[in-house]
Amino acid sequence: MAVIAILGYGTVGSGVAEVMNTNKELIESKAEQPVDIKYVLDLRDFPGEPVQDIITHNYDDILNDDEVEVVVEVMGGINPAYSFVKSALQSGKSVCTSNKELVAAHGAELMRIAKDNNVNFLFEASVGGGIPIIRPINRSITSDRIEAVTGILNGTTNYMLTRMENEGIDYDDVLKDAQAKGYAERNPAADVEGHDACRKIAILASLATEKTVSYEDIYTEGITNISTTDMLYAKKLGGVIKLLGKAGFEDGRVWARVSPAIVKADNPLSMVNDVFNAILLKGNMLGDVMFYGRGAGKLPTASAVVSDIVDAVRHKNINLGIKWSEEKQELMNIEDVRVSKLVRVEYSEKDSAAAAVKRIFGTDSIIEVSDTEDEFAFVTDKVSEAQTDARLEQLLNSEGINGILNTIRIEG
Amino acid sequence: MAVIAILGYGTVGSGVAEVMNTNKELIESKAEQPVDIKYVLDLRDFPGEPVQDIITHNYDDILNDDEVEVVVEVMGGINPAYSFVKSALQSGKSVCTSNKELVAAHGAELMRIAKDNNVNFLFEASVGGGIPIIRPINRSITSDRIEAVTGILNGTTNYMLTRMENEGIDYDDVLKDAQAKGYAERNPAADVEGHDACRKIAILASLATEKTVSYEDIYTEGITNISTTDMLYAKKLGGVIKLLGKAGFEDGRVWARVSPAIVKADNPLSMVNDVFNAILLKGNMLGDVMFYGRGAGKLPTASAVVSDIVDAVRHKNINLGIKWSEEKQELMNIEDVRVSKLVRVEYSEKDSAAAAVKRIFGTDSIIEVSDTEDEFAFVTDKVSEAQTDARLEQLLNSEGINGILNTIRIEG
Repeated sequence: MAVIAILGYGTVGSGVAEVMNTNKELIESKAEQPVDIKYVLDLRDFPGEPVQDIITHNYDDILNDDEVEVVVEVMGGINPAYSFVKSALQSGKSVCTSNKELVAAHGAELMRIAKDNNVNFLFEASVGGGIPIIRPINRSITSDRIEAVTGILNGTTNYMLTRMENEGIDYDDVLKDAQAKGYAERNPAADVEGHDACRKIAILASLATEKTVSYEDIYTEGITNISTTDMLYAKKLGGVIKLLGKAGFEDGRVWARVSPAIVKADNPLSMVNDVFNAILLKGNMLGDVMFYGRGAGKLPTASAVVSDIVDAVRHKNINLGIKWSEEKQELMNIEDVRVSKLVRVEYSEKDSAAAAVKRIFGTDSIIEVSDTEDEFAFVTDKVSEAQTDARLEQLLNSEGINGILNTIRIEG
Repeated sequence: MAVIAILGYGTVGSGVAEVMNTNKELIESKAEQPVDIKYVLDLRDFPGEPVQDIITHNYDDILNDDEVEVVVEVMGGINPAYSFVKSALQSGKSVCTSNKELVAAHGAELMRIAKDNNVNFLFEASVGGGIPIIRPINRSITSDRIEAVTGILNGTTNYMLTRMENEGIDYDDVLKDAQAKGYAERNPAADVEGHDACRKIAILASLATEKTVSYEDIYTEGITNISTTDMLYAKKLGGVIKLLGKAGFEDGRVWARVSPAIVKADNPLSMVNDVFNAILLKGNMLGDVMFYGRGAGKLPTASAVVSDIVDAVRHKNINLGIKWSEEKQELMNIEDVRVSKLVRVEYSEKDSAAAAVKRIFGTDSIIEVSDTEDEFAFVTDKVSEAQTDARLEQLLNSEGINGILNTIRIEG
């Protein structure tokens, strides 16, 4: 019999209880023992609900109860989650969490404390919601050098981009719709400015390098500058615009960024729509493998948390030996990373603008889309961002050019 | 230090050696010890190649060497693979195999023998080539009741169908091309008649039910009757034709089949092209998750085998407790499974044929495509195959109907 406690009875916490209740027999068979929720920590009381009898407002009830073997942290945020998780691990309890902020900020340290105490710190639900990705990286991709990890890691923005793409709805309207549907928060910054995806790619890059990739070091650009006109250009290139979190591992150097990118039709990520997420791994032997599913939502996320509970219970006092050290992984300056870009130019005089593009960027392939005026776009070579920026500076000072309307990275 | 032996130095066997050599440091770090290939069993000698010093022609050299901890069976076929694997497990050696015939025919028994001897029988590469799917099913999807498993499980046929779809090339020509490229064998039956996919869905269905789903019991239909005209009809329905292996688990009843099916654009399997494979799992909490990657090929398959070697080495004398009993899982009669079908009708007189369809199937939605004569198609309700068959019998005897040209299941 394994006794567990849940910290936080919000969406994910109540989902964990629901999954454990609905699939009780199956879960206990996989765990090879009964699993019992003894406490739920929450500020609220939930009178009349089944959970009311096991609610506590005092974390010490859980921490000091030696029966509690696994603590499930689904409160979110850094405080007090961090101190709760730390003390649980130090008391010899395993911790399962869905909290990407916590994992991105303190994952390596918590992993070390878990190891020192012969317990486990598990976080399958922190990236990709219900998609099995953390466990496959740690236990399935064990014979490959990972060359790149690229993910659609935020369901809210993917929903917004899909609707903009399919229905031509403007950014502002689709944001309002996403807020009305509950996909986006009233303050949507964490999603639309890429911070959520940034935490997740930091976690994936850390697991791939086995060191700590700090999310603060990752270049992060959201979707707030993406318009339906940008999507028309993307379509001309045979692609769609997605918000990608990406980390590359080349010749011992590591880089990571979050930004919108044009993803062409031959890349399986181009087909990931609506609130779905996907993570594409490139192994040096395996080639591309992709993991696809629901990146958020009460039950999918809770399902991933419960799969961690099963793992924790099955490995009582056996640390699973996931490698993620506190040593900082230095990242390449994003300006040194090579990438091709789509550049949208506003011109005062088309022919001289096109001539300037030809002279500076060496291309005479000009892309035009309907419903625009005084503008065209072109595609740069795959060179460092610094080199492209320098050329853009030159272009801006050229005859016939009024300005740069947008630049969008092209994946690949 | 872990000592291993490889049975068979064909494509996969030499791939295993290549992966272990290329990624030696990384693999030994994951395995937490050096891993050494002591023997390669093959009938040939490979003079001048690095492998020549460790070639043996006598399996007893391996079986009787107590140093050998893991036996890697990549010979294929049932005999002598079955007796070699059995005796290895009985001697307390773990076995990793890519051999889907062996796993489909004897998986449960070999799993039991492994358990009795406190070793492991692992077979990640037997389904989906390099795609991590066996380990995720066993260790990640532990909190969900699996409601359905649907897979594009054969790369050769998917390559053929993709080319027929995209380029309008006929079946016979695309088969010749696949044979020329080495994707299809001279005798292509195992691929094009669905037998390969059948072994794989039998393995997946067995893991999902934890009992033995016999591949002999699975209704299997290949792609030999699929034409580019069928694909035009599929396109009219917003879909493409894929060879699917599918198992459903509903109300305690289990069914499985391999057949071509029209997969609509909103199903992520519709986007899996060329030699890629994918497996879509539907969990009762998780919803849909899909695993995508290279379903065959030397290095991807070998990578999956090596991930099993790492697992076996890390779990020396610890049976991983995968549940797959020898108890037979009874399957529903495929005639009782409900499915919607596209029916292509050849008529002698169109109006009376359409009237017969309306009278018998209750639909007046007639689908026509260009480049055909004297034919149309319609879509049946989702009822049992037996019921549809009875109605088709009636239709055949109706005025204006010359014959049924093809019937194709519609996925979903």
